[in-house]
Amino acid sequence: MRDLVEIGMGRTARRAYGFDDVQIVPSRRTRSSRDVSTAWQIDAYRFEIPLVTHPTDAVVSPSMAVRIGLLGGLGVLNAEGLWARHAGVDKLLFRLAAAMDEADEAAAVRLLQQWHSAPIRLELITEAIGQVAQAGVTVAARVSPQHARDLAPDLLAAGVEILVVQGTIVSAEHVSSAAEPLNLVEFIASMDVPVIAGGVGDYRTAMHLMRTGAAGVIVGHGAGASTSTGDVLGIGVPMATAVADAAAARRDYLDETGGRYVHVIADGGMRTSGDIAKAIACGADAVMLGEPLAAATEAPGNGLYWTAAAAHPSLPRSHVTEVPEGSIGIDTLLFGPSSDPSGTMNLFGALRRAMAKTGYSELKEFQKVGLTVRP
Amino acid sequence: MRDLVEIGMGRTARRAYGFDDVQIVPSRRTRSSRDVSTAWQIDAYRFEIPLVTHPTDAVVSPSMAVRIGLLGGLGVLNAEGLWARHAGVDKLLFRLAAAMDEADEAAAVRLLQQWHSAPIRLELITEAIGQVAQAGVTVAARVSPQHARDLAPDLLAAGVEILVVQGTIVSAEHVSSAAEPLNLVEFIASMDVPVIAGGVGDYRTAMHLMRTGAAGVIVGHGAGASTSTGDVLGIGVPMATAVADAAAARRDYLDETGGRYVHVIADGGMRTSGDIAKAIACGADAVMLGEPLAAATEAPGNGLYWTAAAAHPSLPRSHVTEVPEGSIGIDTLLFGPSSDPSGTMNLFGALRRAMAKTGYSELKEFQKVGLTVRP
Amino acid sequence: MRDLVEIGMGRTARRAYGFDDVQIVPSRRTRSSRDVSTAWQIDAYRFEIPLVTHPTDAVVSPSMAVRIGLLGGLGVLNAEGLWARHAGVDKLLFRLAAAMDEADEAAAVRLLQQWHSAPIRLELITEAIGQVAQAGVTVAARVSPQHARDLAPDLLAAGVEILVVQGTIVSAEHVSSAAEPLNLVEFIASMDVPVIAGGVGDYRTAMHLMRTGAAGVIVGHGAGASTSTGDVLGIGVPMATAVADAAAARRDYLDETGGRYVHVIADGGMRTSGDIAKAIACGADAVMLGEPLAAATEAPGNGLYWTAAAAHPSLPRSHVTEVPEGSIGIDTLLFGPSSDPSGTMNLFGALRRAMAKTGYSELKEFQKVGLTVRP
Amino acid sequence: MRDLVEIGMGRTARRAYGFDDVQIVPSRRTRSSRDVSTAWQIDAYRFEIPLVTHPTDAVVSPSMAVRIGLLGGLGVLNAEGLWARHAGVDKLLFRLAAAMDEADEAAAVRLLQQWHSAPIRLELITEAIGQVAQAGVTVAARVSPQHARDLAPDLLAAGVEILVVQGTIVSAEHVSSAAEPLNLVEFIASMDVPVIAGGVGDYRTAMHLMRTGAAGVIVGHGAGASTSTGDVLGIGVPMATAVADAAAARRDYLDETGGRYVHVIADGGMRTSGDIAKAIACGADAVMLGEPLAAATEAPGNGLYWTAAAAHPSLPRSHVTEVPEGSIGIDTLLFGPSSDPSGTMNLFGALRRAMAKTGYSELKEFQKVGLTVRP
Repeated sequence: MRDLVEIGMGRTARRAYGFDDVQIVPSRRTRSSRDVSTAWQIDAYRFEIPLVTHPTDAVVSPSMAVRIGLLGGLGVLNAEGLWARHAGVDKLLFRLAAAMDEADEAAAVRLLQQWHSAPIRLELITEAIGQVAQAGVTVAARVSPQHARDLAPDLLAAGVEILVVQGTIVSAEHVSSAAEPLNLVEFIASMDVPVIAGGVGDYRTAMHLMRTGAAGVIVGHGAGASTSTGDVLGIGVPMATAVADAAAARRDYLDETGGRYVHVIADGGMRTSGDIAKAIACGADAVMLGEPLAAATEAPGNGLYWTAAAAHPSLPRSHVTEVPEGSIGIDTLLFGPSSDPSGTMNLFGALRRAMAKTGYSELKEFQKVGLTVRP
Repeated sequence: MRDLVEIGMGRTARRAYGFDDVQIVPSRRTRSSRDVSTAWQIDAYRFEIPLVTHPTDAVVSPSMAVRIGLLGGLGVLNAEGLWARHAGVDKLLFRLAAAMDEADEAAAVRLLQQWHSAPIRLELITEAIGQVAQAGVTVAARVSPQHARDLAPDLLAAGVEILVVQGTIVSAEHVSSAAEPLNLVEFIASMDVPVIAGGVGDYRTAMHLMRTGAAGVIVGHGAGASTSTGDVLGIGVPMATAVADAAAARRDYLDETGGRYVHVIADGGMRTSGDIAKAIACGADAVMLGEPLAAATEAPGNGLYWTAAAAHPSLPRSHVTEVPEGSIGIDTLLFGPSSDPSGTMNLFGALRRAMAKTGYSELKEFQKVGLTVRP
Repeated sequence: MRDLVEIGMGRTARRAYGFDDVQIVPSRRTRSSRDVSTAWQIDAYRFEIPLVTHPTDAVVSPSMAVRIGLLGGLGVLNAEGLWARHAGVDKLLFRLAAAMDEADEAAAVRLLQQWHSAPIRLELITEAIGQVAQAGVTVAARVSPQHARDLAPDLLAAGVEILVVQGTIVSAEHVSSAAEPLNLVEFIASMDVPVIAGGVGDYRTAMHLMRTGAAGVIVGHGAGASTSTGDVLGIGVPMATAVADAAAARRDYLDETGGRYVHVIADGGMRTSGDIAKAIACGADAVMLGEPLAAATEAPGNGLYWTAAAAHPSLPRSHVTEVPEGSIGIDTLLFGPSSDPSGTMNLFGALRRAMAKTGYSELKEFQKVGLTVRP
Repeated sequence: MRDLVEIGMGRTARRAYGFDDVQIVPSRRTRSSRDVSTAWQIDAYRFEIPLVTHPTDAVVSPSMAVRIGLLGGLGVLNAEGLWARHAGVDKLLFRLAAAMDEADEAAAVRLLQQWHSAPIRLELITEAIGQVAQAGVTVAARVSPQHARDLAPDLLAAGVEILVVQGTIVSAEHVSSAAEPLNLVEFIASMDVPVIAGGVGDYRTAMHLMRTGAAGVIVGHGAGASTSTGDVLGIGVPMATAVADAAAARRDYLDETGGRYVHVIADGGMRTSGDIAKAIACGADAVMLGEPLAAATEAPGNGLYWTAAAAHPSLPRSHVTEVPEGSIGIDTLLFGPSSDPSGTMNLFGALRRAMAKTGYSELKEFQKVGLTVRP
């Protein structure tokens, strides 16, 4: 069924593709981009654009989460990040920028490691969540599988409406001899809010997560220029294949349950608006973006990007990288107008136009658009 | 039938090839290049070389259209470009060069966006067309599908002999709720001149366009170093595959109609004379060149190149790029002699020699030459 | 059976893959990294990490061998290297660094050639081995097939517990008209210690070496940034395929003998911790590392790396390359903590985590983890 | 039979491989390099190494032809090159070097074009050939198909023992309406010396050339860093495939004639000694080298390399490129000893060692060595 190669005698590997390997091919009618909708709905929450933010402090501050919400997307606060551990995060981030100005990435990583070793303070994360809730937009926060049970009740009490349970690599069955691992089925059943969980990289794990009752499954681990999971662990998730596999799981689970639709959210491998279009084309319902948003003036990273994996105490797996200085507002970044032909501005206007040029009016339909791969 | 791969479970993509992926392989007799003809005829118009210019202001001024015509090719004015909107285009283009001298591409794009927001002035485009017509060469102009109905009558009145209806991505069936879209069948039937339409990227759309009565179909969207359609929209047209598919549509349509031959014109992916040979080898009847002509002293771009997509008001999809300063006349660029071994001079002398080295004397025959692909 | 392509009429070649071509894909449970063991045992010797050092003077001095042993790995002295031929090796290596400071690689290679033309002095290598033995760690030394018979008795007398018979390319059947070649079967039968032999690049040679009685077979020839075997000889060993083939030989030999397990040790193609994980994933029992250890402060190479092939008198096949200056202790290099996200620190902590993220607790099980290849 | 892909509907191309795509894989015994012979014999002429020089003035002066012959190879003078048209070639080549020093490649190409427009002077080429003949080595000269009939009698009278009829792309059936083309069958039958002809790129043309009575067939057109045939003409000859195909033609022709063995000489795609080994491994009997010899102190190019195609009057197809300054004698370049691990010295010592490491003692046997291709 799958496209297997024998890399050595008796040892097979599957051919897998990234977004860079595929291209969208127009092959039918065209359509006016005014007649295209990019709206997306998960559970009771409707969004004008299929955008979920990657929960990194480099991109999502409480005020950025509000901006994203007002612009039609879903901002996700990292409930275990700097805003959950420190008051005065802005000052910390200026120190980070200063370390990078001296071209000392290791020093910057050490700062992140140190700051993340501080305890989570409930009053801080409650305040951050409250700030988003007050703005009237959908409130979402991310917890790790390890701390989900401890933190979730307080997060919901603070106003969280969508809970994201996210580790770089997550399974439905974590095994540990030391601590009792999170039972996702029980956990999700006990929650009053929809839960999005991930990231996963294959059909089976996606299917398992869907069976836990998750409303959405994150595919990928935010891979981009900064991520080094491949160098450090040898683990990689070619996104076109991973998203298509998760979409197959969604289809099979829909059949298995007689109608439960679990959303597939692509996280990683997207640098440009063209990549966003490809993610939907491969089967994603929405995209989780980090690095492409870091160039916005509102991004707290001050021209830097990193993922939460940069702060691992002994094995960091994200570089701290410089992004083009942000003189562009997040509204222009998402909706234009653009004077930059590189695919990094007007991200969702571009998605709309890609759909129009290939004749589709709804995201769900666009998942069927023709694709080519280069040899 | 086609070469499909499963990129994920239940999701297929087609393997597709660009000109860079293929090479011509000599496999029979050789021939004297003096016995080779590169002549091409569309409708009643015969040309000594199978060259149509890409309708960008960077390459085609009225006087350049005349030069191309006198040299045996077909120059195509952009009837919606700067010469249609502004008097004194030369001065504007010097301002563009100045903006680029300060290494500010965004400023250059903004200038193009601004200049293209000016209205089309009939007297200007009439004058430009008249200038070409007076020189006694075949007169061609390009309109977009959106403005074809409005502009065509005046263009024909001004002397246009071949009409090019071209958008970056075009279909035979455009859907719009706001405005009544162009019905190409009716439009072409109402025209007294042959119509070339495109660009398309696949067999089906090529076939649909052929059925509208077009005399020629443009394949591709002028992709080159400057184009960023892939980055912005995720859309790509691997040219070797697209041209071969359109040639298959030409063959099938010829059979379907019992003899109507619609010309396939390759637009994009060609940087050198070797690429031109590959385009014909893949099945094209003629090539539409932009960037390779920008180095000519006569090119109005003053050492810059861009396509019309650079001027889109909210989503530009072409960079403004620098090309080698043009101390080479367009006649030398097309026919040599050359002292530059890089494949960017003597473009059609090289085509003639490629045909001779593989033993072909006519373009139509050369479409069958052997090809290899690298893994 | 194997994946063959016809590169020309009647001439086939096998598709082969390197570690760069493959990626590990998580597809089942996850696990706490505290529950993971990286222990490896060969013959009676147990090691906490599956690390064998590549026998190059750039990395392994007697004191480095001790350090590696104390940290849970196996250090291998080159019994035909500089410590076997010269007293005061440290001074020589400073001269080498000085030659490279003047950016004269050929001069550095000439120094190595000259120093290796000095005779092996038994008292020196005996002293070096004694230094390792006194520290109480497992003592290993490398000899070439040519000198194995001559040197082995003295090495064992000096305290060697594991003998490594290694040439860049080795077979079980060496043919020579001038000298009687080493008969490995007889040689190994006459030894009181386990013998590791290699390097090999295919199933057949691996199987032949297993049948000689070797306890372990080395796969590859230490290929890395410095090695130039491909440029000089046209010979290459794509490591993912070579390791998987040797693992197949191990399986077949186990069946053939009713239970003799010969260890497969991957040597080459590993730059990062991710590559180490891939080597095990492809079927290796342990990894032989050279270049990744050269950045340690304890490495005798003073910021340089080369393999023994650099010293060949007429046909050197290893560059002398600069490595990042070592301010990192070997303990941190192997076990962290790391503030460097590039995969070059905490090498075996990363292996442990890669196993945990994919749900495996033992190296032997991890050899079955899922793999993908990129097209 | 062949490995075809459908690049577009109804349009196929063959997968073809270069030397860079393949690697030699050891898979049997090893052998002492002292027991290896690299001898090659064509017609009555025996050579210690399978080296024929590419007939470019950058590498082959009369004195270089002598040196190559004394060292065991075959030097080929270009009977239509600078030594055939000018006295005092050394001075011309210094002027060429001066032009390149000013980084003006076009000026250098123009000089070559100008110098090649001078007439061939019989007394000059007779003198050059005489110089080689007097040294007692085998005398070879190259003519183009166009001038073969005119020049050959005088060349043979001057002492040429092997005649090379070589154009960049040659066929057995050249068609021309202007001049009567060379009939190779008649021409070769009328010659008293063995004729080597080429270059060809496929099985069919190789077979046709063999049937003309040629003693050797040249495969390829000298492609290297300087050649731009692909950029200019779109024509390419992936050498691993082309050599293997020509070897198949040799086998079939041997069968067809009941024993006539025509030698296959690979010309192009070889930069290092590893590439030379790959050429033999793919089926070549000998290699024609140009660029790899340009670094020799004896090479007349003074640190520059170009092929004869650089001098084409209107369509040059070779760059003039700088090579590492030659402080290495041609004897060391061919036989070492080397202190350079990059594969550009000790070229035939390396071939001998590659054969030894894979267990072969004769070139003819080494044509069967195992190969891999990377995906």
